[in-house]
Amino acid sequence: WAGVSFLLVPVERCHMTDLINTEKDLVVSLKDYIKAEESKLEQIKKWAEKLDQLTDTATKDPEGFLGHPVNAFKLMKRLNTEWGELESLVLKDMSDGFISNMTIQRQFFPNDEDQTGAAKALLRLQDTYNLDTDTLSRGNLPGVKHKSFLTAEDCFELGKIAYTEADYYHTELWMEQALKQLECRLARSLTCMCVYPEHQRANGNMKYFEYIMAKEKEANKSSTDSEE
Amino acid sequence: WAGVSFLLVPVERCHMTDLINTEKDLVVSLKDYIKAEESKLEQIKKWAEKLDQLTDTATKDPEGFLGHPVNAFKLMKRLNTEWGELESLVLKDMSDGFISNMTIQRQFFPNDEDQTGAAKALLRLQDTYNLDTDTLSRGNLPGVKHKSFLTAEDCFELGKIAYTEADYYHTELWMEQALKQLECRLARSLTCMCVYPEHQRANGNMKYFEYIMAKEKEANKSSTDSEE
Repeated sequence: WAGVSFLLVPVERCHMTDLINTEKDLVVSLKDYIKAEESKLEQIKKWAEKLDQLTDTATKDPEGFLGHPVNAFKLMKRLNTEWGELESLVLKDMSDGFISNMTIQRQFFPNDEDQTGAAKALLRLQDTYNLDTDTLSRGNLPGVKHKSFLTAEDCFELGKIAYTEADYYHTELWMEQALKQLECRLARSLTCMCVYPEHQRANGNMKYFEYIMAKEKEANKSSTDSEE
Repeated sequence: WAGVSFLLVPVERCHMTDLINTEKDLVVSLKDYIKAEESKLEQIKKWAEKLDQLTDTATKDPEGFLGHPVNAFKLMKRLNTEWGELESLVLKDMSDGFISNMTIQRQFFPNDEDQTGAAKALLRLQDTYNLDTDTLSRGNLPGVKHKSFLTAEDCFELGKIAYTEADYYHTELWMEQALKQLECRLARSLTCMCVYPEHQRANGNMKYFEYIMAKEKEANKSSTDSEE
């Protein structure tokens, strides 16, 4: 397995170590954004809860409520000034720091070409060590630390790249793998199995693949990138 | 107490009942906004947590991490495509519905004049029934339902309005009341009493009042409008 490291030239390796630090830095500023957004939302929720109670009381007995002149004054004050302040808070942008960090770091990001390069390196590795897609997508490479999985989308990406290289052998292998993982995920996420349509095995049938992909995305909207 | 209702002409009363419904409607769309924002934030937090773990592992042993070609491929894919998707999610505006509702409803909102009018009605009531500021600010009006309090800011507002009317008698009464309530709140919110500065009784000393107001706001930032 010593050969694996030779798939990337030393300069690339060094650059990639920088990318790891870049990503770490982005995570830090993303967490700052989350904290700021949560505290903003907390303030808004406090106001909403207070006003929810208040308007509940007021709408149930408007005459009685307005009969208290302090309530009348406070209603005027809320609508004339306080709701406007609340609106400013809602409109307050907490993402500035994170977004400008993204903008700065983006210039060092890998591009499509780099992504394709890394995918091709994986396909070469597959051939060199004669690995099947299942083993590779489970990250089962003996002797390698920090095991990592390929999601259905990753497998689809590999198939697509093989396809643009007119490498139909790998295209079929990886599209099959992507489909298999999607089906597993779909079966897990669908509670009612009866809505699962009868399907023919889709040997390289892109249309069907895209259909099932969209369906899966619908059913699984909440998880941004759940691992297979 | 039947006289109280005569302080507002019937048309105003009817209009004010509408305002109660307007406010109820705003609360509903504010709660929708909160739900949408929370679900967006939930997705972002999931990504942040996943990436936090991942970058922790990666930065501790970059060589070992990148030694796994699947990790290298996924790092490329994350930086080239997935972080961009996350950025779009961060930039996604969830407040549209609430803000346009505010914009529509704002035309029916009371203005400064209405707010001043309601304040003057309170001052007239105070004279008519010979009420002290403490009783009125606690909402202790016998026979009136839906008891409501005046905050220090409300009292300050009443004092300010009396001042612009050159009514220095009520100005002093309400500024005193505001100051008293602020001092109580400040004493409650300051954990270390030693930072509480020696102060002279500020009879109408606006500068001191504003200083204490700012200090109090600092100490009490989290609560948007805590009631006295």
